[in-house]
Amino acid sequence: MCARTVTAVSAVWNAKDEKNKHLPVTAVNTTARLSALRQQIQAWNLSAYIIPDTDAHKSEYIGKHDERRAWITGFKGTAGIAVVTIGKAAVWTDSRYWTQAEREMDCNWDLHKEVGITFIVTWLLAEIPAGGQVGFDPFLISVDSWNYYDTNLQDSNIQLVSITTNLVDLVWGSERPPVPSEPIYALETAFTGSTWQDKVSDIRSQMQKHSKAPTAVLLTALDETACICILLGENFTVLINISYISPERLRDIQRQMLQMCRWRLFGANANSGAKVSKMLSPRQINLKWSPPILFPGLFNLRSSDITYNPFFYSYTLLTNSSIKLFVNKSRFSPETLQYLNSGCIESMCVQLEDYNQIRDSVQAYVSGDVRIWIGAQYTMYGLYEVIPEEKLVADAYSPVMMTKAVKNSKEQALLKASHVRDAVAVIRYLVWLEKNVPRGTVDEFSGAEFMDQLRGKEDFFSGPSFQTISASGLNAALAHYSPTKELNHKLSPEEMYLVDSGGQYWDGTTDITRTVHWGTPSAFQKEAYTRVLMGNIDLSKLIFPAATSGHVLETFARKALWDVGLNYGHGTGHGIGNFLCVHEWPVGFQTKNIAMAKGMFTSIEPGYYQDGEFGIRIEDVALVVEAKTKYPGSYLTFEVVSLVPYDRNLIDVNLLSPEQLQYLNQYYQVIREKVGPELQQRQLLEEFEWLQRHTEPLSARAPHTASLASVLVASTLAILSWSN
Amino acid sequence: MCARTVTAVSAVWNAKDEKNKHLPVTAVNTTARLSALRQQIQAWNLSAYIIPDTDAHKSEYIGKHDERRAWITGFKGTAGIAVVTIGKAAVWTDSRYWTQAEREMDCNWDLHKEVGITFIVTWLLAEIPAGGQVGFDPFLISVDSWNYYDTNLQDSNIQLVSITTNLVDLVWGSERPPVPSEPIYALETAFTGSTWQDKVSDIRSQMQKHSKAPTAVLLTALDETACICILLGENFTVLINISYISPERLRDIQRQMLQMCRWRLFGANANSGAKVSKMLSPRQINLKWSPPILFPGLFNLRSSDITYNPFFYSYTLLTNSSIKLFVNKSRFSPETLQYLNSGCIESMCVQLEDYNQIRDSVQAYVSGDVRIWIGAQYTMYGLYEVIPEEKLVADAYSPVMMTKAVKNSKEQALLKASHVRDAVAVIRYLVWLEKNVPRGTVDEFSGAEFMDQLRGKEDFFSGPSFQTISASGLNAALAHYSPTKELNHKLSPEEMYLVDSGGQYWDGTTDITRTVHWGTPSAFQKEAYTRVLMGNIDLSKLIFPAATSGHVLETFARKALWDVGLNYGHGTGHGIGNFLCVHEWPVGFQTKNIAMAKGMFTSIEPGYYQDGEFGIRIEDVALVVEAKTKYPGSYLTFEVVSLVPYDRNLIDVNLLSPEQLQYLNQYYQVIREKVGPELQQRQLLEEFEWLQRHTEPLSARAPHTASLASVLVASTLAILSWSN
Repeated sequence: MCARTVTAVSAVWNAKDEKNKHLPVTAVNTTARLSALRQQIQAWNLSAYIIPDTDAHKSEYIGKHDERRAWITGFKGTAGIAVVTIGKAAVWTDSRYWTQAEREMDCNWDLHKEVGITFIVTWLLAEIPAGGQVGFDPFLISVDSWNYYDTNLQDSNIQLVSITTNLVDLVWGSERPPVPSEPIYALETAFTGSTWQDKVSDIRSQMQKHSKAPTAVLLTALDETACICILLGENFTVLINISYISPERLRDIQRQMLQMCRWRLFGANANSGAKVSKMLSPRQINLKWSPPILFPGLFNLRSSDITYNPFFYSYTLLTNSSIKLFVNKSRFSPETLQYLNSGCIESMCVQLEDYNQIRDSVQAYVSGDVRIWIGAQYTMYGLYEVIPEEKLVADAYSPVMMTKAVKNSKEQALLKASHVRDAVAVIRYLVWLEKNVPRGTVDEFSGAEFMDQLRGKEDFFSGPSFQTISASGLNAALAHYSPTKELNHKLSPEEMYLVDSGGQYWDGTTDITRTVHWGTPSAFQKEAYTRVLMGNIDLSKLIFPAATSGHVLETFARKALWDVGLNYGHGTGHGIGNFLCVHEWPVGFQTKNIAMAKGMFTSIEPGYYQDGEFGIRIEDVALVVEAKTKYPGSYLTFEVVSLVPYDRNLIDVNLLSPEQLQYLNQYYQVIREKVGPELQQRQLLEEFEWLQRHTEPLSARAPHTASLASVLVASTLAILSWSN
Repeated sequence: MCARTVTAVSAVWNAKDEKNKHLPVTAVNTTARLSALRQQIQAWNLSAYIIPDTDAHKSEYIGKHDERRAWITGFKGTAGIAVVTIGKAAVWTDSRYWTQAEREMDCNWDLHKEVGITFIVTWLLAEIPAGGQVGFDPFLISVDSWNYYDTNLQDSNIQLVSITTNLVDLVWGSERPPVPSEPIYALETAFTGSTWQDKVSDIRSQMQKHSKAPTAVLLTALDETACICILLGENFTVLINISYISPERLRDIQRQMLQMCRWRLFGANANSGAKVSKMLSPRQINLKWSPPILFPGLFNLRSSDITYNPFFYSYTLLTNSSIKLFVNKSRFSPETLQYLNSGCIESMCVQLEDYNQIRDSVQAYVSGDVRIWIGAQYTMYGLYEVIPEEKLVADAYSPVMMTKAVKNSKEQALLKASHVRDAVAVIRYLVWLEKNVPRGTVDEFSGAEFMDQLRGKEDFFSGPSFQTISASGLNAALAHYSPTKELNHKLSPEEMYLVDSGGQYWDGTTDITRTVHWGTPSAFQKEAYTRVLMGNIDLSKLIFPAATSGHVLETFARKALWDVGLNYGHGTGHGIGNFLCVHEWPVGFQTKNIAMAKGMFTSIEPGYYQDGEFGIRIEDVALVVEAKTKYPGSYLTFEVVSLVPYDRNLIDVNLLSPEQLQYLNQYYQVIREKVGPELQQRQLLEEFEWLQRHTEPLSARAPHTASLASVLVASTLAILSWSN
């Protein structure tokens, strides 16, 4: 009987399965599948097999058919690595998932409450005899991780074995969800235009300038290939003869185009301002687009392979003479295939190859006198191992990743516009909560559902950008808690509530967190909230030299908390895409993020979590912009593009410095100017009034008694100097 | 005729030497020595030979006999790498040294105004044909640098060749200054005591706990071996029968003991407080020391091999069963040798081996079943290359380096005490400048000399800790300018003056920078100075979580400058030793420094440099201490131990926040309390009065006009709330 049965609802899953006699109802019996996996392990002559939690593209969110770790263990949390030996089966995961793992795993599995492969290696060294072999799917392990395992196991004469056949897939068999096979239709029009050539030439010129002169760039991250599409298309303008198609169909086309490769169907219009929501009526598109290029027919681009992300499984090998896109070719219609093979000039044509051919193609390519440039941070060992060392150019990120990090002025305008509409949805939710929570009719799950519904009412919405975190009271102290229909908590005016959510809009991806209290917060809650806000403000208004690493800036978001001995245990922010990843690398405030540059978007999200009591996070998305400084220089600062006021009920104005107060009031003025008209125009008058009330300028009330005297002295002096 | 002759005073050095026909008088003719070196290069079948600027211990300051780069090029700057091929000779150095290099090098040499080996590699790739060989003394190149050269040259089929015979030394011949050979006398008393055993056991237990279980630690940095001595000795107490020796001789013994290995002759007394200067009268030592251990005779320990640092050339191999000290054995007397080989218990005995045997000894040691733990940041390739990879445990720093980084309470008290006396010297200098600069009798060089003389009047002074930087006006904008007797600038009340200096005292190493103006500074100078001060204060008073990296904290020292578009181009601070290195790794605010911990000492030194006009730096040494926070937690802050007030003439009080002002006034109170009595006691009454004047509490005058209204509102509100 394993420890997990202590909290179990007694449920006999399998009378013959002594180990699992008593199990929580939430647990999955894995005895049979584990036994089948062990047969494979023995067949391959292994001592252990490692099952990572990622896919072949190191994606943040993975498809159902890639959830191998979840299937073999029963534990569905997004982070956690499993290892199976003949005698043992173990999972390593972090504190966010300990309870969930205990609930979902049966007694075949040992839970290790540790994170990091150092612990796994230590365990392997204890379990595996010298001469043993540890198996791995090389497409599920990054180069760095491979090297770490390999170096440390080698020392004890244990061999790491790369097996391209995934053993879990063999066992999973027909039960495994199918790899997405829905058709991908490509544009039926010509890939021509100087801007398109410029973009491809830019990457190729970066290849030439590189000291190691790579002949190709290998793109393995899904948003890299999506981005190559952007590179090919974003400045491409298209004329649609709308007499041929209905407005509904046009809108559908727009959606499909955006989802696949974010063709800027309304790109040309973004120059005219931020009012994207106004720009997309078919007639206007027709009127404004220039130069006109014939867009003759219908097409359909699909990209819903992964929840929350508009990607499809693919690799790209961009060489100095070709562009190869590796996808499931059967998903393309003959017309699309024909289309892609005509109408382009040699090195500018996109050649389609089968998704599964990537390893062989790279292997064939490197037989020549070539060098392949990879992003070592996320390229998997399965591709790395076929590239001879002297033909490898490994930088942290590919040039596509680096170029994508900076949004051009059109993309900036689009992303800002999506945040205006997103603010409307969030404000509607906050107003609704204010009315309904006191009635006791809202729980965490129904709240999250309503939040998602409200976003659904906004133009160009294509789904949430991640699972809404809707957490009341002590649940908010769990950094990534999400309620379920079965397990949730009722919202109450007696407790703090945290909602962290975002949308995928065709013009941008959003991510915002607000924390509220509808009753009387404790003095400590108010202080903690105010200090989190002070941190958010201090970082948002910081002026810093161009090309500074975010890693050395994020401490400003912590200082107000540090001052009194408080802190938070997570990062301070991450990059965000234009209808791409909600967590977009390599922008952000972590060690491995690249230096800040004008045109990047990042979240700013300090927090504070009091275990077992409450959690606070205040998250905005901000654009990196040039700062105007008294003395000339190349300096940057942030322009916050999330436009939802903070909870006045939780702000202790007296803790704010005059500078923080001034900044806050200026930000509120911006919210009024940008969101107010949108609410009025849409007759959301209750929300408009709420907004006015919640963005009233704040002012310090009586200063602290301690500093009262000095203020009086100062003002007296001021009066004296006036009378001079 | 090379470019350098443009600025040359015409001086024909060698009529036959066409290249060097016209040379500045300051240049050295290197034609003959270069020619001899090229013969060696050819004899060794090389295409190029690289001459680094360091010694075999990667020391910051190197001995005369190690100044190979300076000798072969003529250029005496401390940083710069030379490369010689058959046809060319080149030097790479940074902007601090460009003028000096142009003045000192003849036309045989090309000056490359670039830093970093990437530039050297690019040059080599252009100059050396495929199949060529590039030679290197492996004791003068770190593992990291070796790998970088090797990887990049290999790609072009150029081989890096390790030659343990230094080719410059062969050419330098009898002209080369001798390697120090003055006697080193060791303690003639027993090495026993539990604390000593504890310290050695600590390092050995760190070896056992390490996941790779090293069997030995190799110490190659000179302050590591010095530190092993500390480890052996710091808690060791000694009784001296003073009836046998004169007070002068005792003082000399103290000095020698401290210099060699910093035996804490007065260690036991440090517990009683910070008044070290009081503790060292022979009689008191006799009275206070306990437990008494017989210290029967005289001894002499030398350690002046390197200017500014109390080291002697050595390596240590500390294994689980032995302690081997590699030094020039001929420097030890027979008594000392006998002494070291007796009176100790096996694994706790220090075995002396010849300095030059280190490579062979390491090679012999690794033939066994062993693993050697090295500090990869500073171990040279010459030792690294003889250790097989599977027997190497390479961490960034050795455990000795990590242990040494944190000073115990005795060391803290000692270091603080040295700063009180150092403040007296600096204050005396500032008072003297205030009187003499207006008379026009002080120049940068005579000022620096007087500063050093004043330190010489302080107890336990053993020399400056680095060459005093004494820079007036535009010279201060050069970060590491030092005047010479020939080239210097007169100090004037019309210009700013920067003095960056420090002392080696037996109880501690000091380093302090003050910038002053005796006339009327411009508004910009005043603003820049005040913002540098604000940065110094903001970092000094910062509260941060234990184990935070200094690298993410130093931005607080820059924020006040960033706010208006100003910045500085150097690091914000470095570790400092107790009578060891003035720049002591691995503590500090740079990327590679280790996390901050209670008991570390670091400098805090923001600056601002206006090219061609002036330079500002405000540097203090600070101790990392526990912070008391409102809510409980493990937080740290700094306690500034440098005790010299800042220049009131340059502070714009209105720029300071109330918190900064409060901090400054508290710091001034500490200065008064600690330095005031010292000045009074020594009858330095003029200095005492000066100190009182310069530490008067500062207060904000009239607030800025811009914020006047809000202050009035605030005070009105305050009054209203009073009347409630």
